[in-house]
Amino acid sequence: MKRTSLGEAICPIARSLDEIGDWWTLLIVRDAFSGKRRFSDFENSLGLAKNILSARLKMLVANGIIEKRRSSDGSAHGEYHLTEKGRRLRLVLLAIRQWGEDNLFVDGEPMMVAHDQANRPVARLQLMNVDGRLLEPSEILVTRGRKKSAGAAPKTGRSRAR
Amino acid sequence: MKRTSLGEAICPIARSLDEIGDWWTLLIVRDAFSGKRRFSDFENSLGLAKNILSARLKMLVANGIIEKRRSSDGSAHGEYHLTEKGRRLRLVLLAIRQWGEDNLFVDGEPMMVAHDQANRPVARLQLMNVDGRLLEPSEILVTRGRKKSAGAAPKTGRSRAR
Repeated sequence: MKRTSLGEAICPIARSLDEIGDWWTLLIVRDAFSGKRRFSDFENSLGLAKNILSARLKMLVANGIIEKRRSSDGSAHGEYHLTEKGRRLRLVLLAIRQWGEDNLFVDGEPMMVAHDQANRPVARLQLMNVDGRLLEPSEILVTRGRKKSAGAAPKTGRSRAR
Repeated sequence: MKRTSLGEAICPIARSLDEIGDWWTLLIVRDAFSGKRRFSDFENSLGLAKNILSARLKMLVANGIIEKRRSSDGSAHGEYHLTEKGRRLRLVLLAIRQWGEDNLFVDGEPMMVAHDQANRPVARLQLMNVDGRLLEPSEILVTRGRKKSAGAAPKTGRSRAR
């Protein structure tokens, strides 16, 4: 299928989906979070044809989401590691996870669950404005503006990639 | 491309991407949030071939994310409206938006921005455990478990779809 490039769109959703919207791409990122490093690890986990997996990994490397490194054991095969930009996708995966939990599983059904190292569950993500007021989905409006400079960045202190 | 169905996977991310991972699907949902209702509205917004848009809308309707209704003006064309399940994708779109804002725009670049009706910016989504402790991406672990019954649902009180 011919793709219209949305890499220059002014909508951050469109521009993001240009890099991560593909159906397999986020599953590769998910597997990288779970510690998979080798081409064969991703292949076994995803049951994906070699040529398709290879193309997706190349795209993820080209987009700076995954980087290829030498194998830690000195073998000829490289390893794929998430970059900082890639690790920032944790929140996107969590939002997708919670939607899936709510809408695609019945009570008691076997399900992979997310928690921290102390086995405390991950909190639900919440739609709020900057004053802490909870927002309904319909309350969010989107209008044309500009990206705020880093000086006005939120308190999370995350570095901006470019 | 032949797709392996992940609709029965026990990972909520995989099962969600089986419904929403397609590159165009979430852009159709984005447009529905912004008030688009007609086939021609989506077509003009997305620059998508009629046959592809038609297939994606059919899939969204089949998955219960969008429902087709009679036109409010009585014309022969139907209207596409988000269901409650579809409106719950607001958070997924917000997570993607914020990742795009951080990683794909330079300071001062024109960008669509999200705010509430009082023009207060939407807050950043945060990775936390249920005790309110902020988590780094690497602190989230995923293990095999079960979907909690509705009786143990989080305080947000959202109804579960099935």
